[in-house]
Amino acid sequence: MKSPHIGVFDSGFGGLTVLSALLKHIPHACYTFLGDTARLPYGSKSRRTIAHYASEAAQYLVKQGAEYLVIACNTASALALDAIQDAVPVPVLGVVEPGAIAAHAASKTGDVLVIATAATVQSHAYASACHAQGLRALEKACPLLVPLVEEGWTDHPVTRQVIDVYLSELRAEAKAAGLNYDTLVLGCTHYPLIRKLLEQAVTPGVRVIDSAEATAEAAMKLFGQSDADKSDTAQVRCFATDSVEKFERLGSRFLGRPTGKVELVDLGG
Amino acid sequence: MKSPHIGVFDSGFGGLTVLSALLKHIPHACYTFLGDTARLPYGSKSRRTIAHYASEAAQYLVKQGAEYLVIACNTASALALDAIQDAVPVPVLGVVEPGAIAAHAASKTGDVLVIATAATVQSHAYASACHAQGLRALEKACPLLVPLVEEGWTDHPVTRQVIDVYLSELRAEAKAAGLNYDTLVLGCTHYPLIRKLLEQAVTPGVRVIDSAEATAEAAMKLFGQSDADKSDTAQVRCFATDSVEKFERLGSRFLGRPTGKVELVDLGG
Repeated sequence: MKSPHIGVFDSGFGGLTVLSALLKHIPHACYTFLGDTARLPYGSKSRRTIAHYASEAAQYLVKQGAEYLVIACNTASALALDAIQDAVPVPVLGVVEPGAIAAHAASKTGDVLVIATAATVQSHAYASACHAQGLRALEKACPLLVPLVEEGWTDHPVTRQVIDVYLSELRAEAKAAGLNYDTLVLGCTHYPLIRKLLEQAVTPGVRVIDSAEATAEAAMKLFGQSDADKSDTAQVRCFATDSVEKFERLGSRFLGRPTGKVELVDLGG
Repeated sequence: MKSPHIGVFDSGFGGLTVLSALLKHIPHACYTFLGDTARLPYGSKSRRTIAHYASEAAQYLVKQGAEYLVIACNTASALALDAIQDAVPVPVLGVVEPGAIAAHAASKTGDVLVIATAATVQSHAYASACHAQGLRALEKACPLLVPLVEEGWTDHPVTRQVIDVYLSELRAEAKAAGLNYDTLVLGCTHYPLIRKLLEQAVTPGVRVIDSAEATAEAAMKLFGQSDADKSDTAQVRCFATDSVEKFERLGSRFLGRPTGKVELVDLGG
């Protein structure tokens, strides 16, 4: 059986958690990851600029031979998925819809909470995707969690405290909105690294849904890959548009294995 | 006496703390502030790109009538001051050298500590400027302090704990390096908002030097402004290249007064 070639795109290297989940579910594939680190953060940029940048990146991945694309960037998934799909002739999957579908499968009450970066929350992409699944969703921005993860404080008392502050604010907001939630969606590629801390801090009985995990499961279906072929023959090649050193230093934590040498690429723009 | 027109540039809005210090020392001036929020962070970009962006911004400020420029961005001051000075026909002052000069005036032992962002520390701009003053300097990156300030946690127990972690690491590093320090330089425009917390956490007897304050004092001398004219007739006009809403929302905390309406400008590039 021929190994599929899957391209994975993120504005930074957080999307390596999505690649990590893909490696678990489709371990016989060949992967090319591209982080547009020169132009991050995408969150503060206009929809038009994001669509332009993400389409360039998608075209680069297809030129590298990718037959399928996973957009492991919440902002690009939220604001530019259509534009990317128009720009390349291969199937393209984002991270937002799979997260919402997994939340729908998990929730009995139909009320879910979503935590994400400020940019993702401002786009209301998760709320829209959840509404499309018939769910009510309350989103909360947790701007300190990404820098805490990038500082490596993934099991630090300060991170536990920050999570407690955010989750208690979220509980109060959910109560005020009359939501009977039973599911928490991790709407940021950095959060799987503090999943345990979040699971310990959340109200008992609430299920935690990881968008990265949900996306990998969706990719398996969309790309027609069998769950049976579990031979770990994966090949991973990583590209970044800047900050290669930081990518190599932090990337392995997100990927759960060494990234190997990260190659610098100039997308122009 | 004619009001001088001073242009102030930063990659974001953190440089408003420098403008705030300028308003205290030269309160009769007319100020134009430009934050290049569309292209931040500068820290991860190459020297050439930073010089290009910062020169464009400086030329824009001169076109707006600025007769003097203050580069309130540590990265641009560190990597592009010469390029900016070549690009415009007016006096240009950065934030790094005034900080080092103030540290030299404050230190008796000749050993100083500098805290800043990862990008500023990587450039070693403060260490070089301190060495030029005959000081020994130890720099430490404190990546969580900017997001904590931007989250508004400027008097929060979590921020106190994070400061304690960074300063105790810094003390250990200083001891290992055999430094008998008596001065701590705040090498980031966000840090004046947590100056009190830093002063409380630092070893007793260590003086805290604020680069923003030092830069405003240097500007007064370089721009030939008298300390006598204290009539507060300042006019402030703010421009940003993106994220105007965030600028207006957070900017007043940094400026210590409302920013007024922030005008969107396109620098191209």
